[in-house]
Amino acid sequence: MFFSNPFDDDKLREECGVFGVIGTAEAASFVALGLHALQHRGQEAGGIVTHAPGIGFNSDRRFGYIRDNFTSQDVIRNLPGPLAIGHVRYSTAGSKGNTQIRDVQPFFGEFSMGGAAIAHNGNITNAEELRRELIERGSIFQSSSDSECIIHLMARSLQKDIPERMKDALRRVEGAFSVVAMTRTKLIGVRDPLGVRPLVLGRLGEGWVLSSETCALDIIGAEFIREIEPGEMVVISEAEGVKSHFPFTRVPGRFCIFEHVYFSRPDSILGGRSVYETRRQIGVELARETPIEADLVCPVPDSGTPAAVGFAAESGIPFALGITRNQYMGRTFIEPTEQIRNMGVRLKLNVNRALVRGKRIILVDDSVVRGTTSRKIKEMILDAGAAEVHFRIASPPTAWPCFYGVDTPDRDKLLAARMSEDEMCDYLGVDSLKFISLDGLYRAVGEAEGRDPAAPRYCDACFSGEYPVKPVDMINRGFELKAAE
Amino acid sequence: MFFSNPFDDDKLREECGVFGVIGTAEAASFVALGLHALQHRGQEAGGIVTHAPGIGFNSDRRFGYIRDNFTSQDVIRNLPGPLAIGHVRYSTAGSKGNTQIRDVQPFFGEFSMGGAAIAHNGNITNAEELRRELIERGSIFQSSSDSECIIHLMARSLQKDIPERMKDALRRVEGAFSVVAMTRTKLIGVRDPLGVRPLVLGRLGEGWVLSSETCALDIIGAEFIREIEPGEMVVISEAEGVKSHFPFTRVPGRFCIFEHVYFSRPDSILGGRSVYETRRQIGVELARETPIEADLVCPVPDSGTPAAVGFAAESGIPFALGITRNQYMGRTFIEPTEQIRNMGVRLKLNVNRALVRGKRIILVDDSVVRGTTSRKIKEMILDAGAAEVHFRIASPPTAWPCFYGVDTPDRDKLLAARMSEDEMCDYLGVDSLKFISLDGLYRAVGEAEGRDPAAPRYCDACFSGEYPVKPVDMINRGFELKAAE
Amino acid sequence: MFFSNPFDDDKLREECGVFGVIGTAEAASFVALGLHALQHRGQEAGGIVTHAPGIGFNSDRRFGYIRDNFTSQDVIRNLPGPLAIGHVRYSTAGSKGNTQIRDVQPFFGEFSMGGAAIAHNGNITNAEELRRELIERGSIFQSSSDSECIIHLMARSLQKDIPERMKDALRRVEGAFSVVAMTRTKLIGVRDPLGVRPLVLGRLGEGWVLSSETCALDIIGAEFIREIEPGEMVVISEAEGVKSHFPFTRVPGRFCIFEHVYFSRPDSILGGRSVYETRRQIGVELARETPIEADLVCPVPDSGTPAAVGFAAESGIPFALGITRNQYMGRTFIEPTEQIRNMGVRLKLNVNRALVRGKRIILVDDSVVRGTTSRKIKEMILDAGAAEVHFRIASPPTAWPCFYGVDTPDRDKLLAARMSEDEMCDYLGVDSLKFISLDGLYRAVGEAEGRDPAAPRYCDACFSGEYPVKPVDMINRGFELKAAE
Amino acid sequence: MFFSNPFDDDKLREECGVFGVIGTAEAASFVALGLHALQHRGQEAGGIVTHAPGIGFNSDRRFGYIRDNFTSQDVIRNLPGPLAIGHVRYSTAGSKGNTQIRDVQPFFGEFSMGGAAIAHNGNITNAEELRRELIERGSIFQSSSDSECIIHLMARSLQKDIPERMKDALRRVEGAFSVVAMTRTKLIGVRDPLGVRPLVLGRLGEGWVLSSETCALDIIGAEFIREIEPGEMVVISEAEGVKSHFPFTRVPGRFCIFEHVYFSRPDSILGGRSVYETRRQIGVELARETPIEADLVCPVPDSGTPAAVGFAAESGIPFALGITRNQYMGRTFIEPTEQIRNMGVRLKLNVNRALVRGKRIILVDDSVVRGTTSRKIKEMILDAGAAEVHFRIASPPTAWPCFYGVDTPDRDKLLAARMSEDEMCDYLGVDSLKFISLDGLYRAVGEAEGRDPAAPRYCDACFSGEYPVKPVDMINRGFELKAAE
Repeated sequence: MFFSNPFDDDKLREECGVFGVIGTAEAASFVALGLHALQHRGQEAGGIVTHAPGIGFNSDRRFGYIRDNFTSQDVIRNLPGPLAIGHVRYSTAGSKGNTQIRDVQPFFGEFSMGGAAIAHNGNITNAEELRRELIERGSIFQSSSDSECIIHLMARSLQKDIPERMKDALRRVEGAFSVVAMTRTKLIGVRDPLGVRPLVLGRLGEGWVLSSETCALDIIGAEFIREIEPGEMVVISEAEGVKSHFPFTRVPGRFCIFEHVYFSRPDSILGGRSVYETRRQIGVELARETPIEADLVCPVPDSGTPAAVGFAAESGIPFALGITRNQYMGRTFIEPTEQIRNMGVRLKLNVNRALVRGKRIILVDDSVVRGTTSRKIKEMILDAGAAEVHFRIASPPTAWPCFYGVDTPDRDKLLAARMSEDEMCDYLGVDSLKFISLDGLYRAVGEAEGRDPAAPRYCDACFSGEYPVKPVDMINRGFELKAAE
Repeated sequence: MFFSNPFDDDKLREECGVFGVIGTAEAASFVALGLHALQHRGQEAGGIVTHAPGIGFNSDRRFGYIRDNFTSQDVIRNLPGPLAIGHVRYSTAGSKGNTQIRDVQPFFGEFSMGGAAIAHNGNITNAEELRRELIERGSIFQSSSDSECIIHLMARSLQKDIPERMKDALRRVEGAFSVVAMTRTKLIGVRDPLGVRPLVLGRLGEGWVLSSETCALDIIGAEFIREIEPGEMVVISEAEGVKSHFPFTRVPGRFCIFEHVYFSRPDSILGGRSVYETRRQIGVELARETPIEADLVCPVPDSGTPAAVGFAAESGIPFALGITRNQYMGRTFIEPTEQIRNMGVRLKLNVNRALVRGKRIILVDDSVVRGTTSRKIKEMILDAGAAEVHFRIASPPTAWPCFYGVDTPDRDKLLAARMSEDEMCDYLGVDSLKFISLDGLYRAVGEAEGRDPAAPRYCDACFSGEYPVKPVDMINRGFELKAAE
Repeated sequence: MFFSNPFDDDKLREECGVFGVIGTAEAASFVALGLHALQHRGQEAGGIVTHAPGIGFNSDRRFGYIRDNFTSQDVIRNLPGPLAIGHVRYSTAGSKGNTQIRDVQPFFGEFSMGGAAIAHNGNITNAEELRRELIERGSIFQSSSDSECIIHLMARSLQKDIPERMKDALRRVEGAFSVVAMTRTKLIGVRDPLGVRPLVLGRLGEGWVLSSETCALDIIGAEFIREIEPGEMVVISEAEGVKSHFPFTRVPGRFCIFEHVYFSRPDSILGGRSVYETRRQIGVELARETPIEADLVCPVPDSGTPAAVGFAAESGIPFALGITRNQYMGRTFIEPTEQIRNMGVRLKLNVNRALVRGKRIILVDDSVVRGTTSRKIKEMILDAGAAEVHFRIASPPTAWPCFYGVDTPDRDKLLAARMSEDEMCDYLGVDSLKFISLDGLYRAVGEAEGRDPAAPRYCDACFSGEYPVKPVDMINRGFELKAAE
Repeated sequence: MFFSNPFDDDKLREECGVFGVIGTAEAASFVALGLHALQHRGQEAGGIVTHAPGIGFNSDRRFGYIRDNFTSQDVIRNLPGPLAIGHVRYSTAGSKGNTQIRDVQPFFGEFSMGGAAIAHNGNITNAEELRRELIERGSIFQSSSDSECIIHLMARSLQKDIPERMKDALRRVEGAFSVVAMTRTKLIGVRDPLGVRPLVLGRLGEGWVLSSETCALDIIGAEFIREIEPGEMVVISEAEGVKSHFPFTRVPGRFCIFEHVYFSRPDSILGGRSVYETRRQIGVELARETPIEADLVCPVPDSGTPAAVGFAAESGIPFALGITRNQYMGRTFIEPTEQIRNMGVRLKLNVNRALVRGKRIILVDDSVVRGTTSRKIKEMILDAGAAEVHFRIASPPTAWPCFYGVDTPDRDKLLAARMSEDEMCDYLGVDSLKFISLDGLYRAVGEAEGRDPAAPRYCDACFSGEYPVKPVDMINRGFELKAAE
């Protein structure tokens, strides 16, 4: 019924963004703004939970964009109080079946010592095991979301306060998670031991903020204080400020390297550096590793732009916007006509024909997933009369699915899982196709020595097939890990 | 009730886009695609009229984006036939009162020899005079739109066929207009004698297309044939193809120069050249005319980007995306909270703090209208720690309102109508502010000698105050023309 | 797509109700209440036009019930002023094609001396002739409604004020009409020369009211003053009160007798008597004319109830509610399932099985139109175990369509046009079927002598085939009048 | 924000209706029809759950009427399978805070042996106690509905199949309940030991039906087999048909007597007799107990009609419809204007002025709750010129709230809790006010000897204050039982 735009289908997609505020009037309004700034991390639905003394908890969860659902006085008036958390989630429409509103976070649980709400970015790799066990013991699940396990584990804990119950629960959970949670008086943030997904702390006047990315601090004028550390839990109250805990065994971190490549917004700061600047540097490395003679360097809009700027600067070949994106494009259609379905990527992109005609074009894109869009873009460029088309990709071949909170196709749908670089070049029908090396990517994100195979600093499973947390549920379903070499 | 985003308020805006197709199955589907590609010319509402033999005329007009309203099978199924025209119109919400659906084009009239529908891009400068006269003689107006005059004038004509009636009507009309119209068997396109607004002809298989811009030919795979000439009427039928008429006194054309600067899409072709290339050239001229030492050249997204690319290339100063645009921003809100209202431009733009800190920044924007957004952007850049801010504007000072189909503030709201360049620089609080000269702009669009004051090749009234068509209605309402020098 | 309830399909239906108020604050609020009380006269759509000094005219027209559309502060706030008129119209969904919002009254026209709005109950029998002529002369029609002719005729009039232009227009119009209209300062009411459709005058404090029926005066607490006379025009202003005009040749009135039988609400007053009382009296006459032995007199809900009460009282047979109506039934469904479509009348009616089992039942209904519902009710009653079923009908056989503002099937769909009473009895499969005589009906409405064939006091064309106004458009389309005897 | 119609506020209201079907294709379609017939038992929201082999459970729950939500092919197509249950619930809007969709039944729970859904009519009087205990033990509640306890108690049961788990759960539950539930293969019906709320069994071809009332069997053409007995559980499967269980201690039944007076539909059968006939008999008893001289007996529409028919027959005073109900009235408004709010009961009822003028009127109503509507009706009747107004009430004074699934005001809002009959008569300002006696009511429902105070056959707590099940939660909240005499 829904027709998902093939262009968007051909990207890996972050599944969630989280945001929380304590210690400011009308906290929900700030959460709405923060989630708006994190909308790129999830467009399907959003939710906000607040607590106000004397009123209690309030909650609103809706399908669609934050700006359409959570900006009016009507909505915010029903979300009063100085403490609020929120969540945006990614659209699975068309690929995973229908989400229902009860699957939309934050989730709320009433415990004997009071209520708590949690919002979760990441993926629990043993959720199916946990769910079976909890049902056996009499828990009633209301959603199909893995994150609901955390609430039920908390309900079963014998601890007397909610942060301790949360520690109990999260110690049972495996996978990647950045959690923002709240009780009646506390805002809580946790990152999994490896710190796969991001989470940052900010200061807003007398209050405090937790956010997936720093760009959401900027929109509300909050000051960026620091990243929450891998394995850290912060418990923040108006009375006592920020208390730091480390409930898990401490291990070296493995932050998701794809946040640098594509997921995070270019104006966010990761590891002390602008994401834009890192991406530009990826372009510089890419130009060094894969030089080619050409007339123009064109980004595949919009995500390829910073790397294209870097590539152009390093190579000396002029940068140009050879492809224009239609700003009025949405992601899905309801039962479109045959004509419209056939348009595919043309609905979103158009080649600047007068510009590319007769030219040798370097196209810089962030990644190749299924390859379907890359093929169509190549056709459009050749139709417009380009003399040559060279693809330069700002990440290594994506050959493995992510199980840590990113929507990836099954392995057999990944072009790089089935083909060598040369085969991909043939398949796409371009004059050349080159990817940055994994070492090159590590260098661009600041590891001067490249990747240390014995102790890599990042989670790069989608490129290397080395999964830092064993994906138990997926293995139970038949997924095969990379054979040891 | 509605809160218009201040960022968008601070631009001149094209008021309409038109598109028509004849000689292909499911013409409405192509018109929907064409209008989607022209959505930048009008986002408030859209409409399509079709004709099918044996069924007659069908019409659908709706508020909102084309992609949300005109892509489903349900809608297109009710718009059958090989002949269709469509229209997108700009949102006046907040500035001009409420549009009603009856104001949305195409307009339809039933004449004794059959029906006709018309869609109009431009503005009729004597519409109020005509309206008074028509009411006096017994016409009943249904809309508040000036374009409805054309239908009533056609109804009153004594000519026996519809194209002739249209000539009668358009000879009475003054101003700027590109009209796409249809009868049961004919597609008709007309440009006013000066050709102020664009209109192009394309070929789609055995059929023909009329469109405001060439980018809308690309989306449906139509071939760009030529621009309709100023003062030309083309009457296209399946049987006889394209017939060209020149119903008006022939005078030299005065195409709108602002189409080059901002209105048209960068991937359209105007005057035989890519609009992107022209804008890049404006940036080159601007760098030559207004050089400055700095660390980075940053576009104000997205419209300033091509000129910034040109400026950077000419000046040798690195190009960088110092400001990030939120892609999930809509234009208006319904009763937003105070917090959200105060965010203003931050809802849409964020400075890349880590990138600009300590740098001397050149910001390249396409125009300064009220100056409100420019001030806010400057504040954001300085907040982020930039050392210096220099504005470079890719058009001359906008000191006069447009009466030819562009939404402009009243003259007293235009910053350049009230201040000199130095005063504007002080008012904006930037280190320097420079505009391209009118001659520089003419050079960039291809007039090597600059502007010929005796016979300018373009309509540049918004910069020069020289109105090529007398704005009769506005003068009746008290508007004062520029004093003769 | 829509599935009209077969039960409702099998009734004649009034097509409109009109209401107007002058001289009270928030006039629109009173009009909304009045239209709510007149909702039985038209359920498809409603509209209100108001005028406020210094603000001008405002209008709102919507599909659906008044109570859903016109009761909120939001809506009424946008309809300010002391002068307002309104209209409800009947749903033609499924039978006549789709109505569009532009077909919903009141209609508005801007004349050189100011605007006017009109709302019309009835039908113009020469509308097609008039429309052709007006288009020939250059009028542009916006709706498919016949009533729009009146506005165009007014626009063409050479008279200098609006009431005079309305007289000019209505003198050209043939058929049945009760019009409520307004200018900036005047409320106007007109009935056609025969007074076929009702219109009454009421007093509301210092203000005045016009309404189709008196029940709508009651709801707003207005006092019933008098009926507007056939052929009368009243022009009401705050300054001068009610002025009476008689613009047409004066002829004896022919009020619609079916208003007594079915259309008007039982709590309205017609001809000085409660409609309920008249209907009860019809039941009394019916019992006298068509006696039968039985156990229970049951009404077909709800319209048959008053006549059943009268029949029971006159015959001495106990009255009982043998059929229960589901109060939550709407009129139409969108694409219902097969199961639901097959339910037909059972969705709305259920027989009280325990009550009717083994009994001889007299069913009293107001009319038989197609006979489809009567058949189904008979089946339900027999299924429930009734011993005998006798139909008694509170009107003569409906053998002719109405062309004066009532929705009737084509003549060949009317059961009584194709069958004698005995044949109908066989067709329905009941033990007996009897109709009141035309004389009996005249006696019940107060004509002690019955119907005077030389000069009948009512329009009874649907029974007699004698049309008091020649249905010109219908004759042009091929309708054959009853042969002279 | 919502303005509840005062007329409807002044009734006791049934809170739910339940319906289930097994053994027929497209079971959901039959459930939708059944719920439509039970809509009088709950208008706020409805829900349907189905199970289809190979597909699993599907669920849809929506606010609003069944006919608007559950009749289209789109909706029913998503509810496939031969087994379905459904629920309608009463609107608490305005009186009890906002219901959310998660509070709408049927509720669903996933157990280790498979899923189950339940729908519940009645009220659990120890729900708060149970809820506290369950939360203490780690259950997470998702709704504010008491009925959710049943699902959690089932989840905690150690029994191996779902019917046994349901027995476990229901043995912990106190109060009044008629439950319809389903597993993947079984339809289950249960009535509490006293059988306070109704539940009947029907046969539909090869399948079986459970329904709150027989009228819902009629609509789908099902045959009425028998009432489920107090304390009975029926487990129905396609393979084994109906199996009867009696899981509770067996005690004499106490069916709700108010179902006879008002809640059930008149065309349903209760205790072997038509509800209409019982109500008529109440009118007969009432006329015998409280005779008076008058001109007309008028029902307060629509619920007073059968008793008024009986009263008129017994007293010999003519029956007449002196009050007309507006059929287009809904129950609530969103922010109505002041005018509309002031209309109150006039929006729904109008007196037939011409009929009642100068007459002595007996008004027959089913009950007096707050008395607010009775006062307004009296005023309307006197305004219309009635000479005398006598109220006759078809139930004893309602002096105690119901805790068994009926929405009643707090005790201090009940007129009869604060006043004697004479005081009520003064308060209402009528010429006389009489209620049927409790013995008279028992006689009318078939107990020839009247009420046996030692062992009453019905629950009549709302009249007598004698609660057959101790309302534990309410007592914990401070409710005081009637003092022992």
